Amino acid sequence: MTGPGLFITFEGIDGSGKSTQARLLAAHLQDEGHDVILTREPGGSPGAEEIRSLVLEGDPDRWSAETEILLFTAARRDHLERLIAPALARGQIVICDRFADSTRMYQGLSRGDLRGLVDQLHDLMIGREPDMTLLIDMEPDVGLGRALSRRGTEERFEEFGEEMQVRMRAGFLELAREFADRFHIIDGAQGIDTVAADVRDVVARALAAR
Amino acid sequence: MTGPGLFITFEGIDGSGKSTQARLLAAHLQDEGHDVILTREPGGSPGAEEIRSLVLEGDPDRWSAETEILLFTAARRDHLERLIAPALARGQIVICDRFADSTRMYQGLSRGDLRGLVDQLHDLMIGREPDMTLLIDMEPDVGLGRALSRRGTEERFEEFGEEMQVRMRAGFLELAREFADRFHIIDGAQGIDTVAADVRDVVARALAAR
Repeated sequence: MTGPGLFITFEGIDGSGKSTQARLLAAHLQDEGHDVILTREPGGSPGAEEIRSLVLEGDPDRWSAETEILLFTAARRDHLERLIAPALARGQIVICDRFADSTRMYQGLSRGDLRGLVDQLHDLMIGREPDMTLLIDMEPDVGLGRALSRRGTEERFEEFGEEMQVRMRAGFLELAREFADRFHIIDGAQGIDTVAADVRDVVARALAAR
Repeated sequence: MTGPGLFITFEGIDGSGKSTQARLLAAHLQDEGHDVILTREPGGSPGAEEIRSLVLEGDPDRWSAETEILLFTAARRDHLERLIAPALARGQIVICDRFADSTRMYQGLSRGDLRGLVDQLHDLMIGREPDMTLLIDMEPDVGLGRALSRRGTEERFEEFGEEMQVRMRAGFLELAREFADRFHIIDGAQGIDTVAADVRDVVARALAAR
């Protein structure tokens, strides 16, 4: 499904500022004249958003980890088929706030050792990896403070506490080593504008190298 | 997940009378003093019923075949974990109207050649097969006439027309050969009481042999 476009994802622990950075990058690239789509997971297409609601609303324990992985994979398949792949085929830049790496971390690490299952399901039903993944990395206490200051209705992913955030950060850094060809680690503890400038530099180099 | 209980499924083309026969068998076994749970797919547990609604309501083309298979597998995983496996572990007889064989037929046969994908996903996320599957077999024109006479709101599976029903019947008979150890073919063109008696005989032999 590799198209002529560029598929960029943002990953990081809660409160890392990745959603803000995804928005800033999208605005910057649009200003530069690129054709950009900004999207997010879970969700991102009408069907996937319905599945997102099914998973994130109601009792957090009503789905087992395995069922949850299946539902997120169904949502990702829909998102990829309906939005991401067609946009890449048209040559657009797709910027996605979270993608399969988040499932590798949150389901694979937080709810039992299901990483192997997540990977097998990904290989079978999704297949596609991003061209470039920007990991907004920071100390968990910084991220947790930010996340707690903006608690909303969908708190599922913020409720893990600091110990889990420490494991998540380590997990993301391990993923960055595992997929070293597409991961770029950005120091997220800097000011927003400095982080945004680092992100722009990394993406500019990738666009120049095409 | 094999428990001391007995897991019986009914399969067949639309209008074959399998739902009626599942009900009659459940009532008969209860009368005989067995502890029986009657359930159905898609659905069967609260979570799985929500997924069923997501798939069967709305535009039938809004999900791709692959996304639909993922959603049905998520529903089956929930149904198996929450209802079927615990009941079997308690020693109950579980009678289920449709199970994985229906996905092998309807998604695997009707929407592209996805049987291989269905099987891989089943092996990865479900694993469990029924102890005994009763295929209520009949000529498609008989089944189609019956199905058309009771069209409801969920017409997804009845809208394939006679040519598809002919392929489905052949597909189910092929599945019966593939899984010969658990499939039993019942002549569904007979009167309801005769079919019910045939079903009771097959199940009685299985219960006696335990």
